[in-house]
Amino acid sequence: MDFIQSMRFPFVLVMGISLIALATAFWLINWVMAKDTGTDEMRKISDAIKAGAEAYLRRQNYTIITLSGVLAAVIFVLYAFVRQHNEHDPANSMQLALCTTASFVAGAACSLIAGYVGMWVSIRTNIRTAAAARTSLNDALRIALRGGAVAGLFVCAMSLIGVGGLFIILKVLGFPYEKIPFMIVGYGFGASFVALFSQLGGGIYTKAADVGADLVGKVEAGIPEDDPRNPAVIADLVGDNVGDCAGRGADLFESTAAENIGAMILGVGLIPYFGWKGVVFPLVARALGILASIFGVLVVQCEEHEDPMDALNIGYYLTSFLSALGFAGAAWWMLRSEAAPNAWIYYTACGFIGILTAQAFVYITQYYTEYKYRPVLEIADASKTGPATNVIAGIAVGLECTAVPVIVISIAILASFKLGVQALGPAAGLTGGLFGTAVATMGMLGTAAYILAMDTFGPITDNAGGIVEMSHQPEEIRKKTDRLDAVGNTTKALTKGYAIGSAALAAFLLFSAYLDEIFNYTGVRIGVDLSKPEVFVAAMLGAMLVFLFSAFAIRAVGTCAQTVITEVRRQFKERPGIMKGTEEPDYGQCVDIVTLGALKAMIAPGILAVGAPIVVGLLMRGFISETQRTIAAEAVAAFLMVGTITGILMALFFNNAGGAWDNAKKYIEMGTHGGKKSDAHKAAVVGDTVGDPFKDTAGPSLHVLIKLLATITLVLAPLFI
Amino acid sequence: MDFIQSMRFPFVLVMGISLIALATAFWLINWVMAKDTGTDEMRKISDAIKAGAEAYLRRQNYTIITLSGVLAAVIFVLYAFVRQHNEHDPANSMQLALCTTASFVAGAACSLIAGYVGMWVSIRTNIRTAAAARTSLNDALRIALRGGAVAGLFVCAMSLIGVGGLFIILKVLGFPYEKIPFMIVGYGFGASFVALFSQLGGGIYTKAADVGADLVGKVEAGIPEDDPRNPAVIADLVGDNVGDCAGRGADLFESTAAENIGAMILGVGLIPYFGWKGVVFPLVARALGILASIFGVLVVQCEEHEDPMDALNIGYYLTSFLSALGFAGAAWWMLRSEAAPNAWIYYTACGFIGILTAQAFVYITQYYTEYKYRPVLEIADASKTGPATNVIAGIAVGLECTAVPVIVISIAILASFKLGVQALGPAAGLTGGLFGTAVATMGMLGTAAYILAMDTFGPITDNAGGIVEMSHQPEEIRKKTDRLDAVGNTTKALTKGYAIGSAALAAFLLFSAYLDEIFNYTGVRIGVDLSKPEVFVAAMLGAMLVFLFSAFAIRAVGTCAQTVITEVRRQFKERPGIMKGTEEPDYGQCVDIVTLGALKAMIAPGILAVGAPIVVGLLMRGFISETQRTIAAEAVAAFLMVGTITGILMALFFNNAGGAWDNAKKYIEMGTHGGKKSDAHKAAVVGDTVGDPFKDTAGPSLHVLIKLLATITLVLAPLFI
Repeated sequence: MDFIQSMRFPFVLVMGISLIALATAFWLINWVMAKDTGTDEMRKISDAIKAGAEAYLRRQNYTIITLSGVLAAVIFVLYAFVRQHNEHDPANSMQLALCTTASFVAGAACSLIAGYVGMWVSIRTNIRTAAAARTSLNDALRIALRGGAVAGLFVCAMSLIGVGGLFIILKVLGFPYEKIPFMIVGYGFGASFVALFSQLGGGIYTKAADVGADLVGKVEAGIPEDDPRNPAVIADLVGDNVGDCAGRGADLFESTAAENIGAMILGVGLIPYFGWKGVVFPLVARALGILASIFGVLVVQCEEHEDPMDALNIGYYLTSFLSALGFAGAAWWMLRSEAAPNAWIYYTACGFIGILTAQAFVYITQYYTEYKYRPVLEIADASKTGPATNVIAGIAVGLECTAVPVIVISIAILASFKLGVQALGPAAGLTGGLFGTAVATMGMLGTAAYILAMDTFGPITDNAGGIVEMSHQPEEIRKKTDRLDAVGNTTKALTKGYAIGSAALAAFLLFSAYLDEIFNYTGVRIGVDLSKPEVFVAAMLGAMLVFLFSAFAIRAVGTCAQTVITEVRRQFKERPGIMKGTEEPDYGQCVDIVTLGALKAMIAPGILAVGAPIVVGLLMRGFISETQRTIAAEAVAAFLMVGTITGILMALFFNNAGGAWDNAKKYIEMGTHGGKKSDAHKAAVVGDTVGDPFKDTAGPSLHVLIKLLATITLVLAPLFI
Repeated sequence: MDFIQSMRFPFVLVMGISLIALATAFWLINWVMAKDTGTDEMRKISDAIKAGAEAYLRRQNYTIITLSGVLAAVIFVLYAFVRQHNEHDPANSMQLALCTTASFVAGAACSLIAGYVGMWVSIRTNIRTAAAARTSLNDALRIALRGGAVAGLFVCAMSLIGVGGLFIILKVLGFPYEKIPFMIVGYGFGASFVALFSQLGGGIYTKAADVGADLVGKVEAGIPEDDPRNPAVIADLVGDNVGDCAGRGADLFESTAAENIGAMILGVGLIPYFGWKGVVFPLVARALGILASIFGVLVVQCEEHEDPMDALNIGYYLTSFLSALGFAGAAWWMLRSEAAPNAWIYYTACGFIGILTAQAFVYITQYYTEYKYRPVLEIADASKTGPATNVIAGIAVGLECTAVPVIVISIAILASFKLGVQALGPAAGLTGGLFGTAVATMGMLGTAAYILAMDTFGPITDNAGGIVEMSHQPEEIRKKTDRLDAVGNTTKALTKGYAIGSAALAAFLLFSAYLDEIFNYTGVRIGVDLSKPEVFVAAMLGAMLVFLFSAFAIRAVGTCAQTVITEVRRQFKERPGIMKGTEEPDYGQCVDIVTLGALKAMIAPGILAVGAPIVVGLLMRGFISETQRTIAAEAVAAFLMVGTITGILMALFFNNAGGAWDNAKKYIEMGTHGGKKSDAHKAAVVGDTVGDPFKDTAGPSLHVLIKLLATITLVLAPLFI
């Protein structure tokens, strides 16, 4: 009774802030929608993008809903059967099967909605940004950012409401606090599952259209980017929305949801110290982070001749600062008890480590992908001797760029772990340390809403540039949108760095949650001992999965792009009026072809990702000897951990190599090494094209894969015992 | 006394066979040297290659000897200091320091000699193969293979004599059998250390020369491969020798040595069952494998119109069959006792698993790199749409090709482990199982001498082709050497598959040896528990090392190739007579430039590889708490294991992507998609060039890195406790 009394306030706070965030999002939608939509020509183009994006997302969501339905049924059956088998308590077993399935469905539904809303706003903000660019850079910047913020706020608020809501519902149904986090892991899995397909489908769509449009348009026909004569140009613009908005929205939705649940599971271990407060702390910390993000978004503005990136950075620093304050307050309030009076200081330090880690990733990403620094200049130099040396240099940069992030993450994990151990003293053992890494992750995710706003800014300004170009606006307007577009490219790269950084930091937290869950079911605290052959083999298979998954994702782009190339060539050949500008190309046909291609291509890697951990777990169960009941659970943990390590490295490689190639090309286009149309530029275009599926398909899909592996093992843990 | 009596026969056998192998090698040298050396023009070219290769190897060996000397001193000091510190027994400690340092020096020296002999024969066989090609394909084939066999026999015999000899010396000095394997781990480390620099230096040399020669010669000047007007052509031919012969020779020398020692360490655990026989079994099994290889090499011959690959395959099957017979015999003789009367049957089965794994890797490599199959055809198809899609397709193939080998290795490890457990029954526990994986590795390495003969066949025939081309022989002679060269490309790819397969299979054996050694020093049997933060962080750093090392290796080729390009362009510009054929280019200048560049470039990755495990181990020692004395040793084990897993995957990726690109180009050159000089061909040349540093620098260096990590941790284990 006392529990329920005192828990009321934090929950009201979390829900209240979430509702404020949603209200702000709606207010921002109204603010954006009231803006001018420019000329008829602009509206025509924007409508075509809108129609294509909505048609694609409708079909993609239909596919995802079907797959989710099938999986929900499988989860229910497995849970009902396996738990019944293990527990000999049919009633309890059925209840848990229902809970897990229901939270899976809820997670999947929320993830779909979050992705859809982000894209819905984005395809309406693009034209308003384009229209505003005709009069004021500041207006254009603010419209794009606030449009993007709708996605950010929606994603973060939805994830809080989902996790918090399920918590309350289960509490009202009478479950004990300490069991609830284990019952809502299905929510994280549902979110991951949808995120995987959204990111894969969107990522394949956007790059197949981009590569296809570029190779025939720019390289063969010699027409500029976004030229209306290119039949694939609308598909390319649609791709920016379905890949970057819908995909990344679903990605970060599941990050925040899964990592929140993981942190709550670890909080259960601290109930002797902080009671239920430790369990709810992650929700409160993140709610305060959302508030900070709202302030951050609202203050951003810039003068006509300022660098818009500086304006965005000011907003980001403010958000980080406010979120650090909120974090310290929440820690003081919730992570303090007589048993550990100073714990809150240590955990606040852990949170700060998370915030600093986020900053570090932003800097590292900039270093490796901006043309102010050595790596991109090296690639640009190598372009002088042709495409082969350009590609070799890019791959070397991509491989190299993994080093510093891994060192940063290592320091963050060890430092927050040591601080966590200090917080509760040696008596609490590893539990306090593990919670320290969880708190650091929460700190890192505090600014998620702002980061996501900056990310969605990317495709909005990209689209705005495309609309300005296609509607034949004067040169100076294009220059303005080009400036915003360049900033958008940077923010997109930063978000990927942030996403992979938080995935890496969260990895350890999610492993620990898994081990806690195994303990919860078996009473045995297992290690993950690589010196056992089954465990080592599973680890090797986990790393291999990352390579195979990447191969599938990259090949899917290649195959799908081929169909676009064939179609564009066909249109150019059969309708010579297109190139003369007297005949309009059939944009819709290209959009349809990419849509079908992307949907078909996302199935294989998706099934691989979901199926592999299940197969490995069940196979290893076959090896169980009487003395080692938990060997399958241990093998699956190794599969997950080493898969995660490899996934982090490969994602960094793909994202940064792709970003560096892109900017090496831009650097040459600015006039170095002969500028546009020089041989060096042609070489750089090859590198950029190679980087496209790296940075926008394989890399981002790997973020989701990592977290999917974590949540799928959390949900299916009972199967492996 | 009884021990010494009964051990005499196996040791006499091992040493006897080793001496027979060396005698055969000398007989083969005489046989090859007696052959005709062709025309004066051919001799002139061959002499230039010889001079360049010997000059390079002299300088490289000088550098390596210096570095080895420094490291030997460091090892001595560390050992003397740390062991003194730990054991409080200065006399014993000094003895061990001396032993380890001496065996390090011996290993380094033998590795250098093995690499040198391989190259010495190769640069003398090339011209004789070229000369023989004028009259008979069979003669040319046999000369090339027998020249290659000198390297194979020398490497395998030297490694047996080294390990066996040290064993005898230490026994005579009065050390107990069960301590000796731990005392000679330095031998494996010395071999690895030299192999690392040989493979790195050679790999950078060969590809910098190749890429440089191709980019200016083939692409810019439009002259064919191996054209005498290209100033870098001699450097390119020298590169084949120093990279493929000297590098790979050192690589396989250390494989056989390190894995032998690892297997002997595990054999120590079985002394209760088989006595010292289990410790010596690996030596005997490999000695019989060498005998089998001699027979295999001697039977190879082919008719004028047969495929030379078929002839080589017949030799390989014979070697595998004989070595399987020998293996079963050795197991029956040495792995049988009253306590375990049927153990030899199970262990024979383990050996067969190793032999089958070798076969499987040969098939898989062929599937992914020959143009008869889907992967290469896919890359060739993608070349139609330009270099970007070609590169994307190649990377997808490279990533995909990791899947089946990992599954094969997983099955081999688990199956041999389970058989090993069966062999000794549950009472022996894991020890019997671990020895099972060691026996499988010995089975796989049984055919090493034959494989290495086929490998060295590659650069010999490559050089023979170059000599024929440069000395203006008639078209039909070139066709003959082209056929041999094509076979050589296949055998080189197969050897890489075999080398990485054996490294993967051996990995688990070497980890277990490390854990045994920690047990030997501390009496604590540690696991490698990834759920501890220090261990997880070390695992992440291990994976990162592989990426960073690859980045260094690939960048080194790029940088060094740039200097070649600049030099070739300079010669073309300053001496226009070269292109007209009236003036001879300055080959020596190019050779010098590549030599200096490669030597400089190999230092950074080499130091990184050697330094990283030491730094990680010592840093983690800083985290030692009183309750976890062995945490640093555990962290280093995780560093090694996850580094190995990542290394295996990346090596497969690099080797097979490179091989597939190479053959996609060859396939197009045969006339598909427009044949030579078509746009598809140009695109394929880009992919091939990107693949050059992949398959001949980064990939092979990673094999060595993996084994270096294993031996360095074995040697430095006492430091981490």
